[in-house]
Amino acid sequence: MRRIAFAELQARIELVLLALGVAPARAALGARLTAETDRDGVRTHGVARLPRFAQHVRSGLIDPRAGPEKVAGFGAIERWTGRRGPGNLAAYGAMQRAMELAREHGLGCVALADTSHWMRAGTYGWQAADAGFAALCWTNTLPNLPPWGASTVALGNNPMVVAIPRRVISSGGGEGKSAPIVLDMAMSQFSYGTLAAYRERGDTLPVPGGYDERGQLTNDPGVIEATHRALPIGYWKGSGLSFVLDVLAAMLTGGMATHDFSTDPAKEVGQSQVFLAIAPASVETIEELSRFAQGQSIAQKAIDALHAATPIQAEKPVRYPGEGALRCREESMALGVVVEDAAWDAFVKLELELSHV
Amino acid sequence: MRRIAFAELQARIELVLLALGVAPARAALGARLTAETDRDGVRTHGVARLPRFAQHVRSGLIDPRAGPEKVAGFGAIERWTGRRGPGNLAAYGAMQRAMELAREHGLGCVALADTSHWMRAGTYGWQAADAGFAALCWTNTLPNLPPWGASTVALGNNPMVVAIPRRVISSGGGEGKSAPIVLDMAMSQFSYGTLAAYRERGDTLPVPGGYDERGQLTNDPGVIEATHRALPIGYWKGSGLSFVLDVLAAMLTGGMATHDFSTDPAKEVGQSQVFLAIAPASVETIEELSRFAQGQSIAQKAIDALHAATPIQAEKPVRYPGEGALRCREESMALGVVVEDAAWDAFVKLELELSHV
Repeated sequence: MRRIAFAELQARIELVLLALGVAPARAALGARLTAETDRDGVRTHGVARLPRFAQHVRSGLIDPRAGPEKVAGFGAIERWTGRRGPGNLAAYGAMQRAMELAREHGLGCVALADTSHWMRAGTYGWQAADAGFAALCWTNTLPNLPPWGASTVALGNNPMVVAIPRRVISSGGGEGKSAPIVLDMAMSQFSYGTLAAYRERGDTLPVPGGYDERGQLTNDPGVIEATHRALPIGYWKGSGLSFVLDVLAAMLTGGMATHDFSTDPAKEVGQSQVFLAIAPASVETIEELSRFAQGQSIAQKAIDALHAATPIQAEKPVRYPGEGALRCREESMALGVVVEDAAWDAFVKLELELSHV
Repeated sequence: MRRIAFAELQARIELVLLALGVAPARAALGARLTAETDRDGVRTHGVARLPRFAQHVRSGLIDPRAGPEKVAGFGAIERWTGRRGPGNLAAYGAMQRAMELAREHGLGCVALADTSHWMRAGTYGWQAADAGFAALCWTNTLPNLPPWGASTVALGNNPMVVAIPRRVISSGGGEGKSAPIVLDMAMSQFSYGTLAAYRERGDTLPVPGGYDERGQLTNDPGVIEATHRALPIGYWKGSGLSFVLDVLAAMLTGGMATHDFSTDPAKEVGQSQVFLAIAPASVETIEELSRFAQGQSIAQKAIDALHAATPIQAEKPVRYPGEGALRCREESMALGVVVEDAAWDAFVKLELELSHV
């Protein structure tokens, strides 16, 4: 691994996106979102994903020039299409629109069809919460999980995000910096990327992650990679949650459901996504959502209660969702953003290829 | 166990609710919701809960005459208080109001503070989906789960419901009966009621359900009852999901968060709940939500794809959330509603007590 200054990382990603045909303002936004993903420590979904994005652009699966368009609307809910453009830009735009609708109606929802991989799911949670909105969003994916009781894949891992705005008081007594609660989770207990990482390190999983060839639960990552029988979170429960998220996304968008996708990740495009924002604009009514600066907010008390739970290992206190990302962010900005060697080498190779176009 | 005719079960529950001081129209609704819970096979949350409800009424924790009241509103979102009345009546009213808001705005949300146990969570999902609305709702609870990495409880099991309306074509070609997809799940892998049931049968859990006294995962239900270290679904993932559902419910309602509750179930009152409805009234835009009668709906295709997964046991095909409840319902209406002996004896005892008041 190495550390790259955030500004350099962002600038170099922007050049790559421009070379791939993304328009200037959109390339700047895409570069920021990607660099921020590595900055926050979600290294599987930042610069490491750019080679696949480039491959999808070159193969024509993703149109780098296509931006999202509104298809229809009714009150606080709208249907958009991503037109198979860059997925993170479409998702960012969809959440922005959901927030506009929420500012007007208290709630806002954008159902986005026919988009592409949105990279880090949590991005759109941080986006909303930093702007003072609570948010819920999710995407469907290609089939990569067996439903409970089955041995063949029929569910996506369908990442879901819940974000809650929160500010902490600055020492100067000002409004304070945004320190939201952001849950970003897929419906699989371990992603295939995580299974591979454990296998490469020679580690076993801390909890069962799937089934072996005899149908027994196993902690061996390589065995699960071979059977393709990874576990949904909570067994039958995550299986059900993954299914309803997919069906609801497909129905609200009018777009693709998991069963409409190829199982080949190289062809994964056309996702359906839902973005729901809840506005603090309803200040006079939903007043707690505007009380972040007081330090006595409901969120703060809930975090305090969580932190008060007795840790199993004294040196590992309980964390709230988003807490680790914020710490990683501070370290990244002070010392540089950690990028793993293989991801960096692939990125530099991509830079070189594009410089010769 | 025994089977009781649905009409008899409902009528006898209604008399009990009337005797406890619930007003006539409200007692009729409460009796229907309770009897329907047993009818659908959710026997832990139907007639079996009435003795505890009666105990809460008698101890003054629940006011049988209190109905929910609107506190404030902004566009599509409103804040209500349950005034510590019967929780299932308040929740039913909140979902009705969320649907009214959704009919007007496309989306509707009611945040309900200071209510009491809503009994079967899925009730409000079936309510919305049968009326043609998609819905999401959840409640917080007293602390009954350790967060990931801790040995002491700090999270609720916070049941959550996702409901998707769907109709199947009737043989006569009419609109067809409602057969929605309804996911109803708590954030614990097994409830304490389920752990007790396994222990009493002398069974071990099918998957790990918590920790033993040495901090190792165990399938022994009695051991988990002793340590009080039940697992959230998906380990760290369900821990995070439980936390964000609680904080969001408390912030939107302005009501209690899990850490505000006593850990004594006999004192559990004041829950915060969120009801979100998505309207099919936006027919011209969200058209798939109105296509249920066509049998070719997105939901139907997704169900077909799920059913096409290869079952691990040939005689146990994969089911979608809500499928089992619908089958149980048909059997209950044909043969009578199954009620377990202990629950029935306690109910009859309650009837007798109230007849002497």
